[in-house]
Amino acid sequence: MARYLKVAAAQMGPNNEGVPREAVVERMLALLEQAIAEKVELIAYPEMALTTYFPKRIRNDFDQFFETEMPPKALAPLLARARAAGVACHVGFSEKDGGRYFNTAILTDTAGALLGKYRKIHLPGVKEPDGYAQVYEPHFFETGDTGYRVWPLGGATVGVAICQDRRYGETYRMLGLQGAEIVLIGYNTPLSPLALSQNELVMRAGAYENSLFVVGIAKAGVEDGLTLIGGSCVIDPFGEVLAKAATTGDELIAARIDLDHRLPALKRWNFYGRRHPEHYGLITHPVRPA
Amino acid sequence: MARYLKVAAAQMGPNNEGVPREAVVERMLALLEQAIAEKVELIAYPEMALTTYFPKRIRNDFDQFFETEMPPKALAPLLARARAAGVACHVGFSEKDGGRYFNTAILTDTAGALLGKYRKIHLPGVKEPDGYAQVYEPHFFETGDTGYRVWPLGGATVGVAICQDRRYGETYRMLGLQGAEIVLIGYNTPLSPLALSQNELVMRAGAYENSLFVVGIAKAGVEDGLTLIGGSCVIDPFGEVLAKAATTGDELIAARIDLDHRLPALKRWNFYGRRHPEHYGLITHPVRPA
Repeated sequence: MARYLKVAAAQMGPNNEGVPREAVVERMLALLEQAIAEKVELIAYPEMALTTYFPKRIRNDFDQFFETEMPPKALAPLLARARAAGVACHVGFSEKDGGRYFNTAILTDTAGALLGKYRKIHLPGVKEPDGYAQVYEPHFFETGDTGYRVWPLGGATVGVAICQDRRYGETYRMLGLQGAEIVLIGYNTPLSPLALSQNELVMRAGAYENSLFVVGIAKAGVEDGLTLIGGSCVIDPFGEVLAKAATTGDELIAARIDLDHRLPALKRWNFYGRRHPEHYGLITHPVRPA
Repeated sequence: MARYLKVAAAQMGPNNEGVPREAVVERMLALLEQAIAEKVELIAYPEMALTTYFPKRIRNDFDQFFETEMPPKALAPLLARARAAGVACHVGFSEKDGGRYFNTAILTDTAGALLGKYRKIHLPGVKEPDGYAQVYEPHFFETGDTGYRVWPLGGATVGVAICQDRRYGETYRMLGLQGAEIVLIGYNTPLSPLALSQNELVMRAGAYENSLFVVGIAKAGVEDGLTLIGGSCVIDPFGEVLAKAATTGDELIAARIDLDHRLPALKRWNFYGRRHPEHYGLITHPVRPA
């Protein structure tokens, strides 16, 4: 029996600092209404969807950007509407859990149940200004402690990663080895000469090498003076872009994906079956993070 | 002090079955002479450079395509000329070692010394005809037993992979973790609708995600009735294509690469330093090859 899922990346324009969460959620609700009208079954919002991407500079007044409830109270109207409409929902935000800080994303199912959360593992950034944005996330967040996780959703198996995770081949592989058929990746990425090209490059390669769909969801546009790339897209298991944002503002891009579209890829290339883990030993050796 | 190396991919047109190795090596010598004239320091030839890509169909008369000496006797004129000119040389061929069969590539240094060999780990192919070429390599070869290896060459550290290996992110990571700055990858890839795009995709992503150069070298054109893609290229650590073949015949593409071009990438993104091997456990778990 054919298995289809209609997915959408809900790209968001900038959330300038000072804009209340309620105003942000209003925009998220507008994207959700459009998704409902288009019969979307899974809508995915970006990393740090509720606030500005505050790690664009080192600062110590960051508590204001963190959510302390799970799921965040600010998301209540959005999650209620999604539940009522039977739309599964993925949202990224900054999570304060007791005294611990994480860059987190949650996933709800089409019945509105919270399937779980993922906490970002790969935190980017350099301390020294280098002509580009600093985005030194270790100043704000702990390394995620959930591990890579997948959940059953609408007949599919869905995995989650966040932003910098997408530049690590290990991310797609860890999710794919657990059976992920779709990987959702929200991001905030400052513009640099090759940023848009590299964004698409790593997500396409991750999709192709692991025979899975990737949905990349940007926060985009000029936010607090920093230009963030857009490029939200849905990518198929052959590495082909099925749908792509045309703007750097609030924009819904939807695709009805055939989950079994990957079967010929799995059969012809059999990437998983022909792996040779006995030759990959160094990949799990400890390294000293710089 | 700046470190430069002039590298070249020596793409080869088809070697139709029945053409003697001597005639093939004549063409390889012509490419070498061009490389010498262009002051190339490292020339790389494709996978199975000396023969036809015989795994295009299942057959049992394959002994004729294997070399039994290391390095192969047929390569003597080429390696002698390379040594005299101070050009390091990478060549792929089918290797018979006693009763064992491997898909192998060797690397010599600028003094003509054999640095070592690499035996292909990821053998592609499906047994059932599926509308595309079969390329069922496990019929002909054992899985390589050398592991991923790197060698010092002209001030650089060079790693080798072969064809299907390039579709596995583990390949670039294993070589990069050993310090590879350049990865040489020869291939024979039958034309299919997305083959050329996917070829460039995986090599660009491998280069970018591991901050290293990739040199992809095709055997190309219509060989024994099967069209092989070309697309030989030199890719920089930012994932950008620096040089690319324009034909599907014998063609040398050269690039003088700045080995320290990757330093800004290593510093800004610090992909290696921010890895989290404690979350990659499944990648080295055993799987049952299909």
